[in-house]
Amino acid sequence: MFGAVRRTGRTARERVRPKHGVAMKIPLTDLNTMPEGDFVALLGAVFEHAPWVARAAAARRPFDTVAGLHAGLCAAAAAAPDDLRRALLAGHPELAGRAARDGMIAADSIAEQAVAGLDRLSASEYARFEAMNAAYRSRFGIPFILCVGRHGRASLLKAFEERLESDPETEMRTAEAEVFRIAAIRLGRLVEADGTLRTTGRISTHVLDTVLGRPAAGVAVELVEAVTGTETVPVARAVTNADGRTDVPLIGGRPVPIGVYEIRFALGDYHRRIGMRLPQPPFLDVVPLRFGVAAPEEHYHVPLAATPWSYQTYRGS
Amino acid sequence: MFGAVRRTGRTARERVRPKHGVAMKIPLTDLNTMPEGDFVALLGAVFEHAPWVARAAAARRPFDTVAGLHAGLCAAAAAAPDDLRRALLAGHPELAGRAARDGMIAADSIAEQAVAGLDRLSASEYARFEAMNAAYRSRFGIPFILCVGRHGRASLLKAFEERLESDPETEMRTAEAEVFRIAAIRLGRLVEADGTLRTTGRISTHVLDTVLGRPAAGVAVELVEAVTGTETVPVARAVTNADGRTDVPLIGGRPVPIGVYEIRFALGDYHRRIGMRLPQPPFLDVVPLRFGVAAPEEHYHVPLAATPWSYQTYRGS
Amino acid sequence: MFGAVRRTGRTARERVRPKHGVAMKIPLTDLNTMPEGDFVALLGAVFEHAPWVARAAAARRPFDTVAGLHAGLCAAAAAAPDDLRRALLAGHPELAGRAARDGMIAADSIAEQAVAGLDRLSASEYARFEAMNAAYRSRFGIPFILCVGRHGRASLLKAFEERLESDPETEMRTAEAEVFRIAAIRLGRLVEADGTLRTTGRISTHVLDTVLGRPAAGVAVELVEAVTGTETVPVARAVTNADGRTDVPLIGGRPVPIGVYEIRFALGDYHRRIGMRLPQPPFLDVVPLRFGVAAPEEHYHVPLAATPWSYQTYRGS
Amino acid sequence: MFGAVRRTGRTARERVRPKHGVAMKIPLTDLNTMPEGDFVALLGAVFEHAPWVARAAAARRPFDTVAGLHAGLCAAAAAAPDDLRRALLAGHPELAGRAARDGMIAADSIAEQAVAGLDRLSASEYARFEAMNAAYRSRFGIPFILCVGRHGRASLLKAFEERLESDPETEMRTAEAEVFRIAAIRLGRLVEADGTLRTTGRISTHVLDTVLGRPAAGVAVELVEAVTGTETVPVARAVTNADGRTDVPLIGGRPVPIGVYEIRFALGDYHRRIGMRLPQPPFLDVVPLRFGVAAPEEHYHVPLAATPWSYQTYRGS
Repeated sequence: MFGAVRRTGRTARERVRPKHGVAMKIPLTDLNTMPEGDFVALLGAVFEHAPWVARAAAARRPFDTVAGLHAGLCAAAAAAPDDLRRALLAGHPELAGRAARDGMIAADSIAEQAVAGLDRLSASEYARFEAMNAAYRSRFGIPFILCVGRHGRASLLKAFEERLESDPETEMRTAEAEVFRIAAIRLGRLVEADGTLRTTGRISTHVLDTVLGRPAAGVAVELVEAVTGTETVPVARAVTNADGRTDVPLIGGRPVPIGVYEIRFALGDYHRRIGMRLPQPPFLDVVPLRFGVAAPEEHYHVPLAATPWSYQTYRGS
Repeated sequence: MFGAVRRTGRTARERVRPKHGVAMKIPLTDLNTMPEGDFVALLGAVFEHAPWVARAAAARRPFDTVAGLHAGLCAAAAAAPDDLRRALLAGHPELAGRAARDGMIAADSIAEQAVAGLDRLSASEYARFEAMNAAYRSRFGIPFILCVGRHGRASLLKAFEERLESDPETEMRTAEAEVFRIAAIRLGRLVEADGTLRTTGRISTHVLDTVLGRPAAGVAVELVEAVTGTETVPVARAVTNADGRTDVPLIGGRPVPIGVYEIRFALGDYHRRIGMRLPQPPFLDVVPLRFGVAAPEEHYHVPLAATPWSYQTYRGS
Repeated sequence: MFGAVRRTGRTARERVRPKHGVAMKIPLTDLNTMPEGDFVALLGAVFEHAPWVARAAAARRPFDTVAGLHAGLCAAAAAAPDDLRRALLAGHPELAGRAARDGMIAADSIAEQAVAGLDRLSASEYARFEAMNAAYRSRFGIPFILCVGRHGRASLLKAFEERLESDPETEMRTAEAEVFRIAAIRLGRLVEADGTLRTTGRISTHVLDTVLGRPAAGVAVELVEAVTGTETVPVARAVTNADGRTDVPLIGGRPVPIGVYEIRFALGDYHRRIGMRLPQPPFLDVVPLRFGVAAPEEHYHVPLAATPWSYQTYRGS
Repeated sequence: MFGAVRRTGRTARERVRPKHGVAMKIPLTDLNTMPEGDFVALLGAVFEHAPWVARAAAARRPFDTVAGLHAGLCAAAAAAPDDLRRALLAGHPELAGRAARDGMIAADSIAEQAVAGLDRLSASEYARFEAMNAAYRSRFGIPFILCVGRHGRASLLKAFEERLESDPETEMRTAEAEVFRIAAIRLGRLVEADGTLRTTGRISTHVLDTVLGRPAAGVAVELVEAVTGTETVPVARAVTNADGRTDVPLIGGRPVPIGVYEIRFALGDYHRRIGMRLPQPPFLDVVPLRFGVAAPEEHYHVPLAATPWSYQTYRGS
């Protein structure tokens, strides 16, 4: 593998973000054996603008698992002198800040902020962020750092407001913890190894037709996120397969942003299609299951067992 | 009783709609025995601007039940010559029409149209009704007649549009059937007798705490009606009592307007109050049960049996 | 009323247990005003062979409620000197003892012991009771006293074995508490007054057809009690009415004996009768709901909401 | 592979049933290419005492799937002259017959009859079978043939009694169909190939703790089969794992015998173990889910979602 790099003449970094965009994961075994320079080239960006963290961690090799590698990087960062640790925090971009808009931040941050929709703020929302960013920076002397991939817009604002009330010492620790979370997600995308870092969660569903005692196939389902009490944004759409499930999770392969969601099942359409006679309007037509996600790295299985006149749900597994 | 009237010196009509507004019901037995004049005075308004219906029905007395009385009135109307029957229909006010706005229609109609919110139309909604009324009148030569108490605004518009496509003969029968329904509701309010007319329905609920195996007391519930896909209007608010029920039905004592409703249960608040530890946000916080009502005279019991992680509902009894 | 007694010439006792067997309840107001002699004649048997309790309580009249009357009687018993209280306990018959078999105990006790089936013991069961009675009497110097109406045979034996291990002082209090419970039930049968004593519980059910969204009528249900792990005895049979309920509770008007019960629903027969096609054998045919009763004075509502392929139950209200 | 056989010097038959008892499956590709003699040696026993069926089918090779192979064998049998087809049926052993007891039947039949417990009949049950076998043979001139692996004892007796009432022609077809089913199961055990024959079903379960919103681990479950209305025989025992499931299906890898089953969940023990306070006796202790199996080749997933006061089940997937 390493030799291959030489042949292709690509840099270590290029190997991981090839032109065609598909990230190629690098085996942990290679990371354990490659020269420090390549190690830093590959993992330097895991901590924003702070390749020194990877350099310090290189000495701690080999690592058995990617979790061990993450722990090693965090330990290296935590072991640094205070001014350096502070500089690490200071090096992060502001959420929805000018830097973000002007593309002056690391590629990873751009992608991550986009996930939370921070690249699509209205003028007033943008202004609000600017104000909070300014207030935060003047109070703590660093930008507000949050692992945005783990938040919906509502929970993000809530966290921002709460942390503005925090005391400096607590806030330093909180900010560093968020930096470590960001690092874990980036590492999970970069490194191939057994023993995952548990940086991704899942929302899945399953529709059962309890009149016929079999999975309900062909049920249109939509997942929306409640941005505010009334406003919702669509997240995913799917149709149940022969097993009553969706072919892929409604959210998967990434943290499930903390927030309130609603899965809407087109149950009435399903019952009409299989020939059941329903009143007009039907007792059950579009069935909404509303639930909150508090743990982005967990699996939220939200099944629906239904007849035209009854249904039940629960957090399954 | 009749003598009493003389003593009070009130007219028969006054007896039923006393100044202080509380309707006093008149016993069927009295209606069976009183002079035709009083009978007509009391029931003349049951058919809009058509006391002749009551007069014709007076001869058919006595009636065993209020249902029998209603049948007698309808039979009298149906037995009339076509031009008179047509005049009966023509005598009705337009829905949300100028007459309604200018208070030139019977008191009952004013109250009934208010129920459907037709007295609170926006200018554009009002214009739309005006247009449909005009189209209907030019096509069928009578105003559009509907027992509005049995409809939500959405189902009312749907019915209006469908009936505009109908053929004249069918439409005459449909309009007359609606007149009879209106009469039944007015009669139910006026007459006291065994054997109701089944002119009222009900929406009720019941909350069970299946963690503790007992009714959930103190749960705030709200009933809203879906006016459109997204817009809802509040209908009723209540808090569950010690038996997990609301002291009075969320809708009762009148037809349940055809439409789509949602009962929203403040389940998270309940669980927090009884001391359960919940994640933030909780998996279940405000639980919406959405259901359609197709039969205004039926009972829709929509219970919720829940834990912080599961719930079920069904159309109960 | 009191005069009436003189006229009929019946004794006070006769008034309450007339020949034709239907117990006539005596109003609390009468008990409050009648001569002490009649009061004692009527309530003397509430405490087994101890009319002195009623006599002592007579002085404490009047009582507002039957609960107050019960408290007054218990207070009178508790205020008596130790030897008298001990004699009160000693005066009780042994459970399933020779006295019971030979009819030498109070009528109430005979009826009460019959409820628990203690009048139908096998020779070996009878021998077991004799042995436990002997062991208990030799250890505590009084017969084993238990409010049998509150126990199934299994829980009765369990209580017997546990109390054999108790210490004398605790056991005296326990025995007296049981005497008070027995008194409450007897009083509830004798006296007519507002504010019941809560001496009765209930087992009820409700069957919902969640395929059709309406109550399931005509479902045969059977209540059995689990005497042992495998052996059961039938307690009640019924068929659901139009509302999906049984016309009377499966158990009611008396304490629900502590124990394990099973309601068996002939669901398959119901589904076949309403014309649903079922496999042979059906997925759900006779559905057993097994549950335990720990509080004889409470209401156990155990509903079934079912389709041919699913069902749910919960302790309702 | 084939060469390997030569080297080991084992016969084709030995390859499939090695001394150490573990059946080694033979790839379909080998069956397609091997000499007719080996093909017959390997598959001759699929049709009881009728290697001629395999010989006739050999000419029809190659087969794409094991299902195709089965179809080929059945076609070969069906294409044979009537007397030969009749001889094929006549060659089968009687159910629970003397031949079975005296070990004079094919090894496969012995194993298959053991599954249904026909090798453990009481004297009276044995006598009953003898009588039915005699009646059947005298009526149809062949032994009663049934794919016993697909039946519980109750359904087996039911089928026996019904078929005794059948007419000869229908019964010949029914018997042959059973022979084909037996062949399918034997073939599934012998041949390794893609595209299974669907000769096996499954009973599985899943326990959800809806108080905590997670799988219930460590719940003891027992599967019993109802032999008669009251008598049951244990089939399997297991304890749920961290995912609330059993590590292996309660029944799997074979047809699920037609019959009535009960899964019993030690729910009370589970709730006590996780520290919930329960009354004595608990409302829910051992929860029985009773269900019927009509399709031996299907998957019966019977989950339990429960709290100490409620539960629900359905046929899942």
